[in-house]
Amino acid sequence: MIVVMKEGAPKEQIDQVIEHIEQWGLRSHVIEGTELTVVAAIGEKRDGAKEALEILEGVEKVVPILAPYKMASTEVKKDPTVVEVRGLRIGGGHLGVIAGPCSVESREQILEVAHIVKEAGAAGLRGGAFKPRTSPYSFQGLKEKGLELLAEAREATGLAIVTEIMAKEQIDLVSRYADVLQVGARNMQNYPLLEAVGESPLPVLLKRGPSATMDEFLLAAEYILKTGNPRVILCERGIRTFEDHTRFTLPLASVPYLHQHTHLPVVVDPSHGTGKASLVATMARAAVAAGADGLMVEMHPNPDKALSDGYQSLTPAGFRQMMAECRKIARVLEMRM
Amino acid sequence: MIVVMKEGAPKEQIDQVIEHIEQWGLRSHVIEGTELTVVAAIGEKRDGAKEALEILEGVEKVVPILAPYKMASTEVKKDPTVVEVRGLRIGGGHLGVIAGPCSVESREQILEVAHIVKEAGAAGLRGGAFKPRTSPYSFQGLKEKGLELLAEAREATGLAIVTEIMAKEQIDLVSRYADVLQVGARNMQNYPLLEAVGESPLPVLLKRGPSATMDEFLLAAEYILKTGNPRVILCERGIRTFEDHTRFTLPLASVPYLHQHTHLPVVVDPSHGTGKASLVATMARAAVAAGADGLMVEMHPNPDKALSDGYQSLTPAGFRQMMAECRKIARVLEMRM
Amino acid sequence: MIVVMKEGAPKEQIDQVIEHIEQWGLRSHVIEGTELTVVAAIGEKRDGAKEALEILEGVEKVVPILAPYKMASTEVKKDPTVVEVRGLRIGGGHLGVIAGPCSVESREQILEVAHIVKEAGAAGLRGGAFKPRTSPYSFQGLKEKGLELLAEAREATGLAIVTEIMAKEQIDLVSRYADVLQVGARNMQNYPLLEAVGESPLPVLLKRGPSATMDEFLLAAEYILKTGNPRVILCERGIRTFEDHTRFTLPLASVPYLHQHTHLPVVVDPSHGTGKASLVATMARAAVAAGADGLMVEMHPNPDKALSDGYQSLTPAGFRQMMAECRKIARVLEMRM
Amino acid sequence: MIVVMKEGAPKEQIDQVIEHIEQWGLRSHVIEGTELTVVAAIGEKRDGAKEALEILEGVEKVVPILAPYKMASTEVKKDPTVVEVRGLRIGGGHLGVIAGPCSVESREQILEVAHIVKEAGAAGLRGGAFKPRTSPYSFQGLKEKGLELLAEAREATGLAIVTEIMAKEQIDLVSRYADVLQVGARNMQNYPLLEAVGESPLPVLLKRGPSATMDEFLLAAEYILKTGNPRVILCERGIRTFEDHTRFTLPLASVPYLHQHTHLPVVVDPSHGTGKASLVATMARAAVAAGADGLMVEMHPNPDKALSDGYQSLTPAGFRQMMAECRKIARVLEMRM
Repeated sequence: MIVVMKEGAPKEQIDQVIEHIEQWGLRSHVIEGTELTVVAAIGEKRDGAKEALEILEGVEKVVPILAPYKMASTEVKKDPTVVEVRGLRIGGGHLGVIAGPCSVESREQILEVAHIVKEAGAAGLRGGAFKPRTSPYSFQGLKEKGLELLAEAREATGLAIVTEIMAKEQIDLVSRYADVLQVGARNMQNYPLLEAVGESPLPVLLKRGPSATMDEFLLAAEYILKTGNPRVILCERGIRTFEDHTRFTLPLASVPYLHQHTHLPVVVDPSHGTGKASLVATMARAAVAAGADGLMVEMHPNPDKALSDGYQSLTPAGFRQMMAECRKIARVLEMRM
Repeated sequence: MIVVMKEGAPKEQIDQVIEHIEQWGLRSHVIEGTELTVVAAIGEKRDGAKEALEILEGVEKVVPILAPYKMASTEVKKDPTVVEVRGLRIGGGHLGVIAGPCSVESREQILEVAHIVKEAGAAGLRGGAFKPRTSPYSFQGLKEKGLELLAEAREATGLAIVTEIMAKEQIDLVSRYADVLQVGARNMQNYPLLEAVGESPLPVLLKRGPSATMDEFLLAAEYILKTGNPRVILCERGIRTFEDHTRFTLPLASVPYLHQHTHLPVVVDPSHGTGKASLVATMARAAVAAGADGLMVEMHPNPDKALSDGYQSLTPAGFRQMMAECRKIARVLEMRM
Repeated sequence: MIVVMKEGAPKEQIDQVIEHIEQWGLRSHVIEGTELTVVAAIGEKRDGAKEALEILEGVEKVVPILAPYKMASTEVKKDPTVVEVRGLRIGGGHLGVIAGPCSVESREQILEVAHIVKEAGAAGLRGGAFKPRTSPYSFQGLKEKGLELLAEAREATGLAIVTEIMAKEQIDLVSRYADVLQVGARNMQNYPLLEAVGESPLPVLLKRGPSATMDEFLLAAEYILKTGNPRVILCERGIRTFEDHTRFTLPLASVPYLHQHTHLPVVVDPSHGTGKASLVATMARAAVAAGADGLMVEMHPNPDKALSDGYQSLTPAGFRQMMAECRKIARVLEMRM
Repeated sequence: MIVVMKEGAPKEQIDQVIEHIEQWGLRSHVIEGTELTVVAAIGEKRDGAKEALEILEGVEKVVPILAPYKMASTEVKKDPTVVEVRGLRIGGGHLGVIAGPCSVESREQILEVAHIVKEAGAAGLRGGAFKPRTSPYSFQGLKEKGLELLAEAREATGLAIVTEIMAKEQIDLVSRYADVLQVGARNMQNYPLLEAVGESPLPVLLKRGPSATMDEFLLAAEYILKTGNPRVILCERGIRTFEDHTRFTLPLASVPYLHQHTHLPVVVDPSHGTGKASLVATMARAAVAAGADGLMVEMHPNPDKALSDGYQSLTPAGFRQMMAECRKIARVLEMRM
């Protein structure tokens, strides 16, 4: 840490900073500049030290130096983590596609979707059984019945099932049916839930919260890794900004940024990331070009009859075309898809 | 709902919209304009109808007309909800102050704070026992021990205890000690948790998520109200924007806006809302002037020794001065404080 | 326009709305719903009518229906506008690349860059002679001397010169040297400047302001079109959000959105859009995959000696590699580059 | 500046940083930490040095230490700047109120407003003659005719005239009529305009751009100060965020923040800051409580007939009530108003 003193801070204030630094078991080092003084604190990071220093008299600001996450960091593990479950492979040059409806609605629907998705080349089937909905008056999912239908679709197609859990108490039930546990954007900082999926043997797909910074996103992953589950897939699904022509703003630069800072694979969800079916395929292409390790896409046989999110779901024909275009770009970049 | 058709949309597309509207049991009404046509859908709101219409061919957009929340709305209940527990009274002309440390750290700390806070005129004591922390390496709270200390502080001072719960399974335990259950900003859309506190007999203080719109905030409250708990206190604690000179941006216009749209009382938290001790008292004054029904403020006897959030905590002297200034403003506005 | 009345709005208030609508020469049409009433205003758009209606008693909100821009809209002109000047061709299946340093610094620098850029396949040379700088203490550009050097580089390579003008009074001077006038992000809503370049015979590259919505961006273009200059190139260069790991957030969904709503070509600037050299090439690829009609990229022979923006400039080697990768993706999408 | 090296950066990279620092005439100072090394650069700030260091190999980041603005800073001038013109006094304990219509529309309108505003206690009259409008199809102001009417209103009431200039070439004309030149939010970074008003003998009211940080805002003021005009009034008028229930988000914490960092007075504009007449008076009160040195408010005798911004204009009665409430709060805080 670097403690920047205010201009003209007297010696007593500097001494007080030094004293605090040394109380934390760190070494201090004073640098006197032309206009002001800075004090470096040297040694392992101490929890709370930054905050404690920040409020001492005469301190202008405290600048941390190390990334706050460790296990998620490329500083700790250089080679990319590859998550593989059934035929779904994400990371390390493999671009895995997870597709399906927002919600499981009926046996016919999910089986039809599963077959279309499979034939078009996806390896994962998404579909909500427990649905977090902004309004308590919206359709909340088929719950266990939905899980059974997902399992049946897996039986029929071999697709890996990716489905959301919203609470610790759903994990046992959902784990009996699912291959990957999804933690939704609204729960990205639900720490008891992160710790609970950290104890699961299943991989976890963690969605970025709409106002989460990269550090917060990686620290949420760190909760899961630290509890013991190394198989975390990050999912960029858009952030909240002033833009109103899309439902969220999809900031694809997070993909190369994350690749520089973490070994965890990164999947992009252009359906939530745009909220408009007419923009999804183009942004899927862009995500592949940005180096995404996977895509998560909403597809519905009849978007206009969907019980949720129909406006951002591709039709079967739209999905097939998206896959064809993405595959061409993946090939050029030497990704397997 | 109003369905706006694209310019030049042919009759078949308009007919398809009408057909859909009528399938939902709504009446339709066509208005032909100079440049385009709109179709009004008349009747009770149907879940999913907007989304289903939005993706029909020829539809430009669908404009909802009613507020999506009901029980939280002033359309349903005109008179302001007053939440009262022990001496803490929030709403209906009463400005309740809740103050205390970010985290309960020790018996001495919380008792000292409780006495200071009480003497300065607060009626609620805040203090985290279960702490949601961005980093898994940060102090996570004293847990049950912290709750016992809060109860002891209540015993000594009569202050109402406001403390956070992070998971359903903590509710029973926390309810044995607390007077108000706090749902934190990170959990504003943790619906299983909202439903769980909806079943509690205790009032709930619901913090706005940092990227939540007013509709989302009120729909989160609606989850609690709908489950059966009418005593919800809303808390504005700042939103995430591009500003970097404060930790969050505190948008006080939400206070009068909420007063126009909901009967629920609104508390402001200038500590998280600014993230800088030097700005807290001024923004507390501004919040009172904006009509807040209460304040939630971090205070610590030794901010520089705090285990969390010391940089945004007032000292005892700072807190007393804040209270004196706020009281003057409250008096001018004929609020009791 | 659709005027939504408040629930329970009495007949007199509805009558007042009707009266206003008719004063504007529009026809009115009342629709009585189950819970409230809406009044449609039918006819050509009237400036100020929305605002005037919005504040009448009993009015909940007024919903506009038509896009506010006309000449920029695909409703008015369906075929894509292609801007062509010297060898630079942007739009209609042609991907034009404009590259060069942030600022023109010296004869050697700009000539060296021009040759590298040309050989790598770019057709436009960027380089600031008049530099808008956040701080008055930063390097402000070589001014006319810089323009002369740009013209010399054009002489040597045939590249089209794209350079920024910051004020009306610079237009004559700059037009003697430049092929395309650039209006920077800070001036996107400098209307006297937009009108001045609207009178120019040169094409205009208009950068999106960091907090501009799509409507505002297209209305800024409309100022130029309306004044008489049809050759406007839109440039997405990133928006301001809460993200702090990039200088701006580059929201590529604006590319397909703009292609759906305007005939004007869209260029992407991944240098300003990320602010980090290590992210530029990847985002250039993503921009091509998103359908961009062109790229605008900062390149410097010695980024670490650059007088401005070195941290986001590619090296010559980095630029060549970016071009090779983008060309592969363009080919797959059947774009000429 | 503090240069933070990457973990494991080899000695050659550190030496290269040192060499660069010394080339800029600065002294360097190396601190070796447990996990990484930092190099301090000591001496006067050098333009471009941060950027140049940032891109050297092995450099993780460069942390500036000094505020980038000087003349606007309290480090340079401790006592608050008071701007006084006719009866309008802003700063140093004086709360000046500037009110009036968005646009000057007619002789009757502006004279009526001027009398109301004067009687209610305002000392400044606002009113646009040159109007920057998002759409080229909106009313653009009465231009010189509007200025003449403003001057006539001043004659009749003694109010100081505050009106916007949009371009350098308007300054001479506007200065013949106005007492304070307003630079609008859209032009906050129009540097040629800032330099032009920097040469004016009139005070300048500078509005914050909707996506400007505090540093950018103060650097814009610095352009004016540096050119020679010391009488700059800062105006907070709201920022662009994801919030959609208000037109902009009014972040009042900027008021105390600016008071800590600059000697320039700060005025708040709750009309643009909320965009809703029903929220203006409450936010005006909050602004006074936050310590604002002045208010700038839109008032119109018939908001529903206004040619612009009627939806955010107070009626005469609403304005008088706002003044009465604000005056009470100002008195409590010992501000003269």
